[in-house]
Amino acid sequence: MASLSTKTGQVVDRSVLDSMLRRRLFYTPSFEIYGGVSGLYDYGPPGCAVLNNIVDLWRKHFVLEEDMLEVDCTMLTPHEILKTSGHVDKFADWMCKDPKTGEIFRADHLVEEVLEARLKGDKEARGQKVEVDEEKEAKKKKKVKQTKAVKLDDAVVKEYEETLAQIDNFDGPELEKIIAKYDIRNPTTDGNLLPPVAFNLMFQTSIGPSSNMPGYLRPETAQGQFLNFQKLLEFNQQSMPFASASIGKSFRNEISPRAGLLRVREFLMAEIEHFVDPQGGKKHARFEEVKDVKMTLLNRDIQLSGSTKTEEMTIGKAVETGLVDNETLGYFLARIQLFLLKLGVDPKKLRFRQHMANEMAHYATDCWDAELQTSYGWIECVGCADRSAYDLTVHKNKTGAPLVVRETRAEPLKVEEWQIDLDKKKFGPRFKKDGKTVTAAIDALSQELREKLSLDLEQTGKIEVEVEGVAGGKVELDKELIKIEKRTRVENVREYTPNVIEPSFGIGRILYSMIEQVYWSREGDEARGVLSFPPAIAPTKVLIVPLSTHQSFAPLVQRLTTKLRRMGVSNRVDDSSASIGKRYARNDELGTPFGVTVDFQSVKDNTFTLRDRDSTKQVRASEDEIALAIKSLVEGEETWEDVRKRLPEFTGQEVE
Amino acid sequence: MASLSTKTGQVVDRSVLDSMLRRRLFYTPSFEIYGGVSGLYDYGPPGCAVLNNIVDLWRKHFVLEEDMLEVDCTMLTPHEILKTSGHVDKFADWMCKDPKTGEIFRADHLVEEVLEARLKGDKEARGQKVEVDEEKEAKKKKKVKQTKAVKLDDAVVKEYEETLAQIDNFDGPELEKIIAKYDIRNPTTDGNLLPPVAFNLMFQTSIGPSSNMPGYLRPETAQGQFLNFQKLLEFNQQSMPFASASIGKSFRNEISPRAGLLRVREFLMAEIEHFVDPQGGKKHARFEEVKDVKMTLLNRDIQLSGSTKTEEMTIGKAVETGLVDNETLGYFLARIQLFLLKLGVDPKKLRFRQHMANEMAHYATDCWDAELQTSYGWIECVGCADRSAYDLTVHKNKTGAPLVVRETRAEPLKVEEWQIDLDKKKFGPRFKKDGKTVTAAIDALSQELREKLSLDLEQTGKIEVEVEGVAGGKVELDKELIKIEKRTRVENVREYTPNVIEPSFGIGRILYSMIEQVYWSREGDEARGVLSFPPAIAPTKVLIVPLSTHQSFAPLVQRLTTKLRRMGVSNRVDDSSASIGKRYARNDELGTPFGVTVDFQSVKDNTFTLRDRDSTKQVRASEDEIALAIKSLVEGEETWEDVRKRLPEFTGQEVE
Repeated sequence: MASLSTKTGQVVDRSVLDSMLRRRLFYTPSFEIYGGVSGLYDYGPPGCAVLNNIVDLWRKHFVLEEDMLEVDCTMLTPHEILKTSGHVDKFADWMCKDPKTGEIFRADHLVEEVLEARLKGDKEARGQKVEVDEEKEAKKKKKVKQTKAVKLDDAVVKEYEETLAQIDNFDGPELEKIIAKYDIRNPTTDGNLLPPVAFNLMFQTSIGPSSNMPGYLRPETAQGQFLNFQKLLEFNQQSMPFASASIGKSFRNEISPRAGLLRVREFLMAEIEHFVDPQGGKKHARFEEVKDVKMTLLNRDIQLSGSTKTEEMTIGKAVETGLVDNETLGYFLARIQLFLLKLGVDPKKLRFRQHMANEMAHYATDCWDAELQTSYGWIECVGCADRSAYDLTVHKNKTGAPLVVRETRAEPLKVEEWQIDLDKKKFGPRFKKDGKTVTAAIDALSQELREKLSLDLEQTGKIEVEVEGVAGGKVELDKELIKIEKRTRVENVREYTPNVIEPSFGIGRILYSMIEQVYWSREGDEARGVLSFPPAIAPTKVLIVPLSTHQSFAPLVQRLTTKLRRMGVSNRVDDSSASIGKRYARNDELGTPFGVTVDFQSVKDNTFTLRDRDSTKQVRASEDEIALAIKSLVEGEETWEDVRKRLPEFTGQEVE
Repeated sequence: MASLSTKTGQVVDRSVLDSMLRRRLFYTPSFEIYGGVSGLYDYGPPGCAVLNNIVDLWRKHFVLEEDMLEVDCTMLTPHEILKTSGHVDKFADWMCKDPKTGEIFRADHLVEEVLEARLKGDKEARGQKVEVDEEKEAKKKKKVKQTKAVKLDDAVVKEYEETLAQIDNFDGPELEKIIAKYDIRNPTTDGNLLPPVAFNLMFQTSIGPSSNMPGYLRPETAQGQFLNFQKLLEFNQQSMPFASASIGKSFRNEISPRAGLLRVREFLMAEIEHFVDPQGGKKHARFEEVKDVKMTLLNRDIQLSGSTKTEEMTIGKAVETGLVDNETLGYFLARIQLFLLKLGVDPKKLRFRQHMANEMAHYATDCWDAELQTSYGWIECVGCADRSAYDLTVHKNKTGAPLVVRETRAEPLKVEEWQIDLDKKKFGPRFKKDGKTVTAAIDALSQELREKLSLDLEQTGKIEVEVEGVAGGKVELDKELIKIEKRTRVENVREYTPNVIEPSFGIGRILYSMIEQVYWSREGDEARGVLSFPPAIAPTKVLIVPLSTHQSFAPLVQRLTTKLRRMGVSNRVDDSSASIGKRYARNDELGTPFGVTVDFQSVKDNTFTLRDRDSTKQVRASEDEIALAIKSLVEGEETWEDVRKRLPEFTGQEVE
């Protein structure tokens, strides 16, 4: 079910891949020599380089390409902001404690784990083939007690399945009922658990020396962008629409993180907040450029019917038929897909899943996740939501800051309305200290009432207006004091709160999922893993391998490495005494796309062999030709096939 | 004293510059619509772009150029690690509380502020010219009471001056004495203060749901690098020396931050940990490349004598004479200087200041700060310390992890030593359960004692060995049981803990100080600020300005912007209705080095003018020539003077 196949059709063995990634220091548990902390990982040199390359590509693909306004806001955030945004009250998961052992479980994960184990036991009892969900398996560090081959009633099976299908939608009281109803206990000890309590996922701290300013580490980069909206609009010379963007760490104090790089407590995000006028259907000026992009979509109706069947559709069609709410949302969905494909994601292992109505925040109009298929199942790597005007509105209401757009109307708006004139000279002496109260009451009169009063005034020469607290609640006004007329008012400025379309990228999740997708192993030798990163993403572009430690190679290696560095091509030398094959095998695991061998022939005639990681084929040419070929391969101007056709193949030595 | 001159000789007016930087959104106080939090700032689009450009250049200049191993470690750090490193106990400032108002002062800053105010009052009373230290002035939000023209005794003046010279060296009890002795009070209310207490500068939090793992936000990126030493060495195929590097945010909960971007609570650091063999004088293989770099050095002896007179010296000379402790430290000092100059730092406003003995951590061998001259005075922007083996040693001792290098000796080491053989067959039955204790005691015998015992054994046939807890503390052994002989042991492997040279960059401080140094304003018009960033650092490289909103310009603008973007040159279009002069003035403030005007001539013959920000001179040429000139200017292949000489000057229209 959650198994993943490599491009060569092998099933990805996650434990083999993980041990390779750790051995090659793509990542490593933080503080491991102190015993480690779950949910915290460090990136080593190759992981860090891939991360930087993804960020670099993201910045080019989104920020530079679309003139977005990149900002860098603080992670430390005072309590009040996150109270307003709703995070203090709602950014929580439900946890159950085992009062005997002190163990803490995330309630929804626990229900999932136990019910799935029971369903598995049921299938075994019925003699059916059991599909293993590796994500769930990985979560079970210890053997779950309930995994016994026990046949369940058909009705119970149905109930369990329905519960699992909706697992993301239950709140604490609902989870409590489910736990009681199905007698869900600590899977290890079979002990009873306390009812679920909400656990806020934000890391709390205190800012300043006097501990009087509680704060949190931000759970997303978005809030800093919203708070600066007014300044960004000003910076953009009041021009709409525009987008801000931010790349930085965010934090979630996960209850019990266990899925490696996919569920961590500190993670790199890249978020875009695209501010758009809610009027006019949220069109996008560049939608035309992407409208023919074919996407794999999983819509909410299909999911509600219990299926995960996807449809192939152009984004143009999806917007046209209303499946995707508007052009701007559609534009970003297509752009997200184009970005992921640049990273080396397999299009067959990418889908866009629409959120179900009860899965979205109440204010969201539409929301889609870009999901990548991994050995853990389909993993949400990018979210793309239409957050409507929610955030700007709550911060505006709280602070009074004008987080709005004021634009001159192309054509002034003409509003027909009943206007009231008061004769101030007579009004003052008449009402004295009550003057203000009466004026305010009159100003507040509705158009409807004004129309009625104008008739009264015309017919009787006077009117009565309700004014709380003055003259027993009713004030009489006559023609001398008041005039009510229908007039045309011209409005030149329109004020509105923009809506926000938010593409939000989990860079660490993308990195890990993408690595699973580019991983495969060489035929016939299980242990020889290869990471087929596209050159732009690979940690190092070229490995330079002198045949041996013979001193005549050193100057050639030095010259090559300097030349490549000047061209901006990152490279590493491996002049260890290991065999060439071993050195290349190591670099296949690091995903280095190209290798240059320096041999005795090189010393004689300054020619070198260039090896392609994926095919292990080699060509041989002069130093300049090899360097230029590398540059053109790395910059994506040529493919290996192009280079192989135009440079002489080298077969003298099989270097796999 | 702390005033700064621009390249055109004007005095930098910090309030004018700051308001320009905020208006142009280089930075802005975080959460300003909520009232802001001191010490927290957001970077807007131009600030963020400069920051990214600095990081990019840093990565090329250090990480890529020297094959450093970049890592990305978590900011969240459990208590135990920072306890071991010494931060929990020592990473603190001293603060005084006013019990009446609740105000909190950083004790050393308070002493400084009050004594300086008194010295200023003294000078006024003596009728001397008062030099204003703007940093101190800026700190005083309210007027300081003590600033009265009161003449002090000569002896008191001397005492105050000596106290100020050593202000960085006092601990809490010393500060308490000074505050009492000089009757230092709350400068605003004149109220008495409570004695100083230590305030740890780390932000505290709690990791996981059960609150049982206290942790902090890291105060530096270094610890993560030390903890991964073993894995990094393995990744580097056991080859020494090597460096790791890390770029990321760190946090310090400053007591009362008031110096803008120079003292903030959350900041971007870039740190290098260069691991080197302590034996052999810490030579550096590439020292030769930098040895002729001339540096401005302020050594510790000069400072001790109360002066700040610097010396010009090549780094080769500085290391040769022992002023800089070793080649590796010297190499990095020179490389730091080369980096800062690339950013546009004025060499005359850069110095390297050596730490005084009592200013360094006790384990440090030598330490230098790269200081940049700003309107706040000389500001430490990069530290470069030799941390010796301290960090690796404390973590190794705490965890038992082998944070050491084991290397095969080129020539095996021959050690003459007294070795002991025990006859195990007889030994076991004789001591039974005490066997282990006795063996351990014998193994622990010093070489000296062994030599003496061997003589005893030869002469008397038996010896006595002290063994705590066995046979009353003394055990007798005879020739049958024990043999002591002088033999030669051959050691093939050498084990050592590397020393660490640590260049540590405060990126935000560098950014702000550098901005002050590249800032100036156009002659005759105070308000027209210019930021003369080098092209590589400028937020945007090119501004494209159509003469008017005439529709015939649009396709040309579109073509230019696409062409430049494809060349990797970031550019922005300003097609607002403001005059060309105004639009260029705006971009001078943003530091955009080049401008292209699109006019009616362009529509006719596809030629454009290219404007240089600093000289406001223009050339005119075809689209291709202009685009290529820009590329070559941005990549540093040509200077403006080169371009101006080879392309026809344009004088048709003065666009300043």
